[in-house]
Amino acid sequence: MPFAVLKEIPGSEARLGRLLTPHGAVETPAFVAVATRGSVRAASMEDLEALGVQILIANTYHLVVRPGPELVAELGGLHGFTGWRGPWMTDSGGFQVFSLGAAKVHGVGKIASIFPGEEAPRRNPSGISLVTLNEDGAWIRSILDGRKLFFSPEEVIRIQRLLGADIILPLDECTSPFHDEAYTRAAMERTHRWAERALSAFARTQGLGPNPQQELWGIVQGGAYEELRRTSAKTIAALGFPGFAIGGSLGKSKEDMHHVLEWTVPELPRDKPRHLLGIGTVEDIVEAVKRGIDTFDCAAPTRLARNGTLFSFSEPGFKLNLDNARYRTDPRPVDETCDCSTCRRYSRALLHHLLRMGELGYFRLATLHNLRFMVRFMGWIRAELAAGRLPELPR
Amino acid sequence: MPFAVLKEIPGSEARLGRLLTPHGAVETPAFVAVATRGSVRAASMEDLEALGVQILIANTYHLVVRPGPELVAELGGLHGFTGWRGPWMTDSGGFQVFSLGAAKVHGVGKIASIFPGEEAPRRNPSGISLVTLNEDGAWIRSILDGRKLFFSPEEVIRIQRLLGADIILPLDECTSPFHDEAYTRAAMERTHRWAERALSAFARTQGLGPNPQQELWGIVQGGAYEELRRTSAKTIAALGFPGFAIGGSLGKSKEDMHHVLEWTVPELPRDKPRHLLGIGTVEDIVEAVKRGIDTFDCAAPTRLARNGTLFSFSEPGFKLNLDNARYRTDPRPVDETCDCSTCRRYSRALLHHLLRMGELGYFRLATLHNLRFMVRFMGWIRAELAAGRLPELPR
Repeated sequence: MPFAVLKEIPGSEARLGRLLTPHGAVETPAFVAVATRGSVRAASMEDLEALGVQILIANTYHLVVRPGPELVAELGGLHGFTGWRGPWMTDSGGFQVFSLGAAKVHGVGKIASIFPGEEAPRRNPSGISLVTLNEDGAWIRSILDGRKLFFSPEEVIRIQRLLGADIILPLDECTSPFHDEAYTRAAMERTHRWAERALSAFARTQGLGPNPQQELWGIVQGGAYEELRRTSAKTIAALGFPGFAIGGSLGKSKEDMHHVLEWTVPELPRDKPRHLLGIGTVEDIVEAVKRGIDTFDCAAPTRLARNGTLFSFSEPGFKLNLDNARYRTDPRPVDETCDCSTCRRYSRALLHHLLRMGELGYFRLATLHNLRFMVRFMGWIRAELAAGRLPELPR
Repeated sequence: MPFAVLKEIPGSEARLGRLLTPHGAVETPAFVAVATRGSVRAASMEDLEALGVQILIANTYHLVVRPGPELVAELGGLHGFTGWRGPWMTDSGGFQVFSLGAAKVHGVGKIASIFPGEEAPRRNPSGISLVTLNEDGAWIRSILDGRKLFFSPEEVIRIQRLLGADIILPLDECTSPFHDEAYTRAAMERTHRWAERALSAFARTQGLGPNPQQELWGIVQGGAYEELRRTSAKTIAALGFPGFAIGGSLGKSKEDMHHVLEWTVPELPRDKPRHLLGIGTVEDIVEAVKRGIDTFDCAAPTRLARNGTLFSFSEPGFKLNLDNARYRTDPRPVDETCDCSTCRRYSRALLHHLLRMGELGYFRLATLHNLRFMVRFMGWIRAELAAGRLPELPR
């Protein structure tokens, strides 16, 4: 499964590429649509094909909770079970070690947000941790029924062998922006040991599951600390993974995130693909592409669609809040430059009505639009790179 | 807008027909898909076209509650506002006089159900009436904000002129199976007076709204009382409507419903179309077609889909409860004889998973299947009639 760098932009890490998987090629930079439980919410697989979506990512933790990896394997793996015939990735459950653990205690996401008028990022603790963790692995409670699920590096490989995605990831410990350097270092070192255990387990399980050609990529951790990020990138790169994901805390600001990429990417081999986990605003993607990222996954485009926030190239901030009463009588499509099936047929007024009434059809129409926006946006980035330019957003 | 009877089955009232509307022809007998608020829940207009759905019905009351008929008219009527380019019907709000009024007090639907092991239909009162009614019209509270909305025969015509459906209906009073003969007679006589007022209002408003070619059909009432049904059919027929709908209580059993049709249909002109309001099980449709009904609307196929009940020609009772744990690992499509996009790609196991997880994509996949079932079922009925046979369900 080689990765080809088709063009590099001198003076930057940005590149145009093509990732070959057992289920087709992915032109990069690419957006990976999030199908947590095997389904992109409100969209069908035919929809995703028609939109030009290239690759999906499902979540190991959520699929363990239900329906279980054995059942997915019995039905042909993710490809057979879900009906998506293109490339699949699976996240390892490492993010849930954070999102159901420290993230709840610290009240924070991957990047701590500074609220308007405040000096420092705010913590909004939202509960107690559902996670306990030691050198063996992590126990995470099921969000469905409270039972404790055990995720070790070996078990996570076994599960992902059964799920059969084309690209799988090792268990890692994703830290919080509020973890100090000492804790972040200890977690990183554990993640490195887990990466070695994952590689061994991956080698031992060759032949298990429906997709023998799947690849295991490495995950770089280290929080927003330069020395840790460089160490982690070098260590994970030295283990010989065929591709890399950048996980964990990206700091307390957009600038921190940019620094993390600037420390990490140069330590990774140029000829291997680089995925940035869980990041996906228009602005973030442009900045990350410039810093050498090839693929991105993010639930925001589909989640925002369901909440009424639709993307548009012609709106300030590239967003339009459809719930606003100003759209009640607006006969225009969401975005007059968009070629999606929603914009070709439905007005803002109709979508506003369906959103306000909670009509189920709304969720799909909005989701298809935002995903088509992401597909076209990534296409624009690739066209800019193909023309030898770094992508620059209009100011 | 003529209606053509293409073939009659001797010895019965059944016929094959074609209804011409300003927005296309409807081959009858036909199923009218329910789009209460202008959208068939979980399906898009492109979906309905691809399924072969011929005609939709929206609800006047619900569209008055939101977004209001003036807004719909401003955006081109139902056709312009919703994006459905084929024929539209609108119900008058008369059913809500019942469903939000007597139906709540009596705890009953259009047909009172006898529960297993009981001798007589049971009443399940579920609240107080939201309706007050007199000779002028009906006040119905908004289910959204509690404000009182006034529906008179004239106002309901004005609203439907603005909505611009191809086939519209006069305000009627739909009675309950538990209303006695005296009340049912008084309600029927009021409905007849309202029908005359509606015809006058319809004539006066010619030119109002986006669809000047729309037709006003009459509604027959009279409960499950033979003399009343015959009187109502004759009276409404004599008013010269170009088509007819049969509304109101259909009694306390399937047999009562069959009798109502046997009393009513022969009193209606043979060359005019006949719609049965709110009825739509497979068994009911077959029996009603034999008794001369041309079109049916019913929310059940789409509502059942959302609840996990999927239609299949190969299951007992033509239904399969997808929530049943037996489908957890079932790799087969819902119905192996079905050509819908859901059955072509997805297993019962996947749909069971999506249903159990409440994944939004489930609702559309299930809805498309049940609607395709109804389209194919009506096609089978038409093929039987074209071959000179009455449709008979396998026992």
